[in-house]
Amino acid sequence: MNLAPLAEVTRGGQIESLHAGAVAVVDSGGKLLYYAGDADFPTFTRSTLKPFQALPFMRGGGVAHFGFGSREIALMCASHSGEPMHVDTVRAMLSCAGCDEHHLRCGCHVPIRYAAADQRPPAGEIFNQLHNNCSGKHAGFLAYCVQHGLPLDTYIDPGHPLQQAIRHDVARIAGLPESGLVSGIDGCSAPNYAMPLSRLALCYARLARGANDREYGCALGPLFDAMTGQPELVSGSGRADLAFMQAAPRDWVVKGGAEGVLAVGVRSAGLGIALKVADGNARALYPAAIAVLRQLALIDAVTPAPLEPWSQPTLRNLRGLVTGDVRATVRLVKA
Amino acid sequence: MNLAPLAEVTRGGQIESLHAGAVAVVDSGGKLLYYAGDADFPTFTRSTLKPFQALPFMRGGGVAHFGFGSREIALMCASHSGEPMHVDTVRAMLSCAGCDEHHLRCGCHVPIRYAAADQRPPAGEIFNQLHNNCSGKHAGFLAYCVQHGLPLDTYIDPGHPLQQAIRHDVARIAGLPESGLVSGIDGCSAPNYAMPLSRLALCYARLARGANDREYGCALGPLFDAMTGQPELVSGSGRADLAFMQAAPRDWVVKGGAEGVLAVGVRSAGLGIALKVADGNARALYPAAIAVLRQLALIDAVTPAPLEPWSQPTLRNLRGLVTGDVRATVRLVKA
Repeated sequence: MNLAPLAEVTRGGQIESLHAGAVAVVDSGGKLLYYAGDADFPTFTRSTLKPFQALPFMRGGGVAHFGFGSREIALMCASHSGEPMHVDTVRAMLSCAGCDEHHLRCGCHVPIRYAAADQRPPAGEIFNQLHNNCSGKHAGFLAYCVQHGLPLDTYIDPGHPLQQAIRHDVARIAGLPESGLVSGIDGCSAPNYAMPLSRLALCYARLARGANDREYGCALGPLFDAMTGQPELVSGSGRADLAFMQAAPRDWVVKGGAEGVLAVGVRSAGLGIALKVADGNARALYPAAIAVLRQLALIDAVTPAPLEPWSQPTLRNLRGLVTGDVRATVRLVKA
Repeated sequence: MNLAPLAEVTRGGQIESLHAGAVAVVDSGGKLLYYAGDADFPTFTRSTLKPFQALPFMRGGGVAHFGFGSREIALMCASHSGEPMHVDTVRAMLSCAGCDEHHLRCGCHVPIRYAAADQRPPAGEIFNQLHNNCSGKHAGFLAYCVQHGLPLDTYIDPGHPLQQAIRHDVARIAGLPESGLVSGIDGCSAPNYAMPLSRLALCYARLARGANDREYGCALGPLFDAMTGQPELVSGSGRADLAFMQAAPRDWVVKGGAEGVLAVGVRSAGLGIALKVADGNARALYPAAIAVLRQLALIDAVTPAPLEPWSQPTLRNLRGLVTGDVRATVRLVKA
């Protein structure tokens, strides 16, 4: 496996740990323009898949059927923090479909908002599946099933018509045969797919083209507009995806996924960018992504203010003493 | 940097993430016998340093002075879980020295016991510095200062006589000039040192020799006996270091450290073994260590029962569904 350096973690000015991985930069036709490491690294897409998991819903007229707006579309694409704005919107989406929290099959976890703020959850606070960062995606899944008269209780089974429709659309967007998608089960129990990293980049180049995509424009247009128009609903306070989308409003669509995946679509430049940290650690991801954006001349010498905390993050210990930092080491190569 | 494969993480039977790093296996004279990757990978020792940070205390007659036994010695070497047995012992150690929790400079964190049991801390539970996994080490630091009339409030400053004495002893055990130790600040705010991975292996080969070490035997003997005699005090319920020491009682001395470091001393074989996961992720560490022990014929075909959960851990998602596993890929090379 050909891995390229992405970032190093220092302590006392010396390297303590190293992160390697791969980067692919493509145009909206999927042509590889720049790369680092193996541009076709087989990459489980994890939460970067969410906008494309919403394609059957979008194409099936779900937005009009349920009277959803861009807030609800943003939530379907979200790895949200479980803040009230997220939880309330998901609850309302479920209600529109005649469902509630008990129909969800995503499982529970402590909302991301606490980790994002480096806080412990308040004493005695009870969480449910609405707080799961994927609950908006699952609410969209359930709404699709209600609209099309499909079984609700098996909506995440790989053989369910919804999941088959998603698999079909994901393969089309990625320009792959369905047999080219490797299947796994995601943290939220939904099917997830792996594809070559350059194909994930292509998916985001097409998402950034939005309404101008010849095949899926009528779905990708509203998805891009919703994600970039309400990035706080797709992510959450203090999180990197939000900061990246605030750095280039309505131009960069940015989505992270578990195990060190990040995908960026750049409307103005007609580019799709995907990064995979081979070891899965997200701490390398954002410094490396900023370095990549700079090498592509999408960021100039001055780092945009929202990205400043993510560029070369200072590491502090329990008493707040600086112990080191995370530094990008990635170098893009022209294809 | 020459890194070797250590482990891979799968999803749906396919590789999702990869971990690389280095391994060094030496005899008690420091001769390299086997390796993977760069045997001299510059490695911040982190918590694997703890037994050697106790050397000035041990050599200065601290055990007799304070009436400590093997429980207190074990705690000085511990990355403990903050269970009552740990916290109570540390509180008593501080009391013997006329100190209390307020003299500690290690900072607070949620006790490891909750992460080890995959639990949230009970609502409203308040934690203090006694719960810090390093509090036993710091209690030993303070006791040393009290015994020798040294300032208490600066006990973790690199220039403090205690820290100078530790640096001296660490360099001697590692067979390095003091200038060969790279300095950083640890998570608990104490000075920490980096050294070539093979030298960390040497430190553990010497620790395993214990009383038979020509230079430091009178300290290393009780340190080895305490760590291997009460491994539950050095680690905690459900944790890997404990499982490893239970797998070969009073023979293997095993200590993990942050950022993917593990060191093992094997008394019966006269070996020291050190592993560093280059990216710092501990999930690769224990499967790789078991593979290394097997390749050294220290484990036969049947994995000892305590190690079974650490050999090829199954990964499950929020609803308990199996998503994949962690598999060792390390291959030792004869030096």
